[in-house]
Amino acid sequence: MKQTAQELADHLHATLDGDPSALISGLAGPEDAGAEDLIYVDSAKHLLRCESSAARCALVREGLKLPGKTLIVVREPKLAFAKAAAWMLEQQPIASRVHPTALIDGSAMISAGAHIGPYVVIEEGAVVGAETEIGAFCFVGRGAKIGESCRLYPRVTLYAGAKLANRVIVHSGAVIGGDGFGYVYGEAQNWKFPQIGGVNIDDDVEIGSNSTIARGSLETTHIERGVKLDNLVHVAHNVRIGENTVIAAQTGISGSCDIGRHVLIGGQAGLGEHCKIEDEAILGGQSGILNSKIIRSGQIVWGTPARPLGEFKKQYARFARLPELAERVRQLEGNRDTK
Amino acid sequence: MKQTAQELADHLHATLDGDPSALISGLAGPEDAGAEDLIYVDSAKHLLRCESSAARCALVREGLKLPGKTLIVVREPKLAFAKAAAWMLEQQPIASRVHPTALIDGSAMISAGAHIGPYVVIEEGAVVGAETEIGAFCFVGRGAKIGESCRLYPRVTLYAGAKLANRVIVHSGAVIGGDGFGYVYGEAQNWKFPQIGGVNIDDDVEIGSNSTIARGSLETTHIERGVKLDNLVHVAHNVRIGENTVIAAQTGISGSCDIGRHVLIGGQAGLGEHCKIEDEAILGGQSGILNSKIIRSGQIVWGTPARPLGEFKKQYARFARLPELAERVRQLEGNRDTK
Amino acid sequence: MKQTAQELADHLHATLDGDPSALISGLAGPEDAGAEDLIYVDSAKHLLRCESSAARCALVREGLKLPGKTLIVVREPKLAFAKAAAWMLEQQPIASRVHPTALIDGSAMISAGAHIGPYVVIEEGAVVGAETEIGAFCFVGRGAKIGESCRLYPRVTLYAGAKLANRVIVHSGAVIGGDGFGYVYGEAQNWKFPQIGGVNIDDDVEIGSNSTIARGSLETTHIERGVKLDNLVHVAHNVRIGENTVIAAQTGISGSCDIGRHVLIGGQAGLGEHCKIEDEAILGGQSGILNSKIIRSGQIVWGTPARPLGEFKKQYARFARLPELAERVRQLEGNRDTK
Repeated sequence: MKQTAQELADHLHATLDGDPSALISGLAGPEDAGAEDLIYVDSAKHLLRCESSAARCALVREGLKLPGKTLIVVREPKLAFAKAAAWMLEQQPIASRVHPTALIDGSAMISAGAHIGPYVVIEEGAVVGAETEIGAFCFVGRGAKIGESCRLYPRVTLYAGAKLANRVIVHSGAVIGGDGFGYVYGEAQNWKFPQIGGVNIDDDVEIGSNSTIARGSLETTHIERGVKLDNLVHVAHNVRIGENTVIAAQTGISGSCDIGRHVLIGGQAGLGEHCKIEDEAILGGQSGILNSKIIRSGQIVWGTPARPLGEFKKQYARFARLPELAERVRQLEGNRDTK
Repeated sequence: MKQTAQELADHLHATLDGDPSALISGLAGPEDAGAEDLIYVDSAKHLLRCESSAARCALVREGLKLPGKTLIVVREPKLAFAKAAAWMLEQQPIASRVHPTALIDGSAMISAGAHIGPYVVIEEGAVVGAETEIGAFCFVGRGAKIGESCRLYPRVTLYAGAKLANRVIVHSGAVIGGDGFGYVYGEAQNWKFPQIGGVNIDDDVEIGSNSTIARGSLETTHIERGVKLDNLVHVAHNVRIGENTVIAAQTGISGSCDIGRHVLIGGQAGLGEHCKIEDEAILGGQSGILNSKIIRSGQIVWGTPARPLGEFKKQYARFARLPELAERVRQLEGNRDTK
Repeated sequence: MKQTAQELADHLHATLDGDPSALISGLAGPEDAGAEDLIYVDSAKHLLRCESSAARCALVREGLKLPGKTLIVVREPKLAFAKAAAWMLEQQPIASRVHPTALIDGSAMISAGAHIGPYVVIEEGAVVGAETEIGAFCFVGRGAKIGESCRLYPRVTLYAGAKLANRVIVHSGAVIGGDGFGYVYGEAQNWKFPQIGGVNIDDDVEIGSNSTIARGSLETTHIERGVKLDNLVHVAHNVRIGENTVIAAQTGISGSCDIGRHVLIGGQAGLGEHCKIEDEAILGGQSGILNSKIIRSGQIVWGTPARPLGEFKKQYARFARLPELAERVRQLEGNRDTK
């Protein structure tokens, strides 16, 4: 699908400077772009790279010049670039078809507009919405529900009963709705506590490759609208993650954590059980949050155990000068002893 | 399969208070329970939730009253709930059948009572025991052996020669018996050291989603009876993990570690090579254990490098007050200088 | 395939002491070895284990005696053992065949000498080179290219356009070329930044189970020749990893990091965005490298935030004695106050 520069400018409520009929069929970085690829220029220092690009159309900030190119002038070129990508994707109809090797239980409801790839297994009572693509080797367990315009890349597993709303993207190898980790010790063995709760993934969530999201034990694990999880993230049973929260790779969230909206969590952070992370808090990479800890709204924390960033920095600066401090104490002692 | 309250009470050696013929067909949390679901009440503060539950039968501690419900009175309701779940699961016969799309080598031995899902691949000489379920897309390599009553969820990989005993549960995406990570550097390149040892998983082990357990290099990696591994756990070559040890998500265990029985390891802990963790030790989340370190039986450690918890807490409390300590030293110095 | 001791000695440029026609058909540890398995002895303390081994041939250092065995005398027995393994592997021709259940797009180019396993999906325009084995359930996306003598274990995903050179080994569950993690926040939502760059994996790279390597956003993610990645490693978009660098399990590398050649990275290390790790640097396990940080060539660092190892050790020793230092300051204060 191709759009004209004018159509894209209209979609972005942007001003056009150049050829309104210039065609745009993709996006790229300046060096890799073909004539019909859209590029963007975020700052003057990238101007040269963009001038020599083969791209005919560019998203630019007001006042920026690129001789010979059609310019779509916006306030935030990088944001506009992302919005342009989303819009172009929307224009691409998916090829709705069910591959003959897909094994779909007779009781499953597959929307006519869905695309089911090769060697997919869909069990009894599952539902797949319109415009949703299910990649090769995906497993959709009994009673799982997938909304509209979702994309499951190859080799995603949804355990029985997992629920995905609309426009959810799940990358290869992710496992949604597996058993949580709960045992009761008694009579010299670990008895498995029932892991039979639900897992709900709301609209516009994206889940990275090989991430694992456990179903609830008796309750429900809940990932709210717009949450983005990077690769190899672990979300335990009964966790809630609030709207638009963003969690970087390899972070682990223990059972029953309650994470607010617009929270940012760096890579490899670890949260103990029953933590509460309030809205708009920021947890630095590799932070460790102790069990049942509360991080207040908007607070920035770092370290293990995590503490406010300013405090951590002060303590850390002192830590680095500890040998010097010890030497000063030694001198004071020498001073005293010689008196 | 349904049981009566009396049958369950008998199984648990518990007292019954109410209708012995009340039927139980599942388990649930109080809010989600239907009439035939079993619930449990662990403490008086949950009484209200349970009173208004639709469940007819509840596991309770002695002395606790739930008007109108049939009570199964036990010492530890949560433990009894887990045991009830295990017992009900046992009563459910699995549907033994081999899906026509499963590709099973002629030399593999599949027990008549096993269930082999769609698009499973089982290679030459592999063995699958009775009452074992192999989910869709599982790969059982050459000569791999799986005992009785195991459950492999969809998309598990067993490399050639991996051995699972009985009642082993493996979740989606886990990889058992992959090559360990060993190279010998010489002539300006890394030569792969042979990774041709075995991997033995004993009875009643559970392995979480996307966890990886390497085969031995020349020896054998050994996970003993009753060990529970959470999601995204990494176990390197030649490791031994002793009976009933429990390891939380994203923990990594380097080559040749020897971990005892009844050890607890928190999430994201990291163990260097050749560590020895003795029985009943506890490693806090995100702990780092240095190469060849020994953690003594029953010791609780935390931090990187890990040290005894009490020590760590004292040091850490001082760390948090370092800026204050430095200020006190500055004052002492001022005091001295003004004399 | 069997080799004689003489052939192997010739290949290794080694001296033979014993029966030149002794046959070698495999490798093993001393205890597990059969008569035709090769063993190695690295130090005199393992001599006893080796003497009682059933193996007829052993790689040994000069001067070492093993009565009754054929000895291949080398300078570095462990290295020679790894080289012997590589050589024997080379002699084993792979069974080139395309399994009838493999779904291969008509436009894909599969070399006559390749082996394509059961239930493999290869999309349009993909290329698979000679002597390459693609295991069961692998997914090779549109336009992906795999060179010669590669081995993809079962259940590997290559997203569209991923490129593997020659002799690349990829273990089960690895995902190569998935979307990087990039969003632009605006209008109260996270817009997905296009993740449409490439991912190039050069010759002789090995990638562990369930590791994830993202494609570039607009640029290219590049793993150079001879790099070895352990299990569950995460490599974000636009990263470069230089030749022969070795990265242990569960390490995470954020976007646009530039890692040099012959770097060693311990397990669970975390690198922020835009780090530069120069050649031959060493990062200790669980290290945390801050965004945009530079680690100089040959430097050894540890801790979070990472600092030179010597410095860290000094600071850490002081940290452990903080309670004692605080007590000494208290005494100095008491001393002052009583004057």
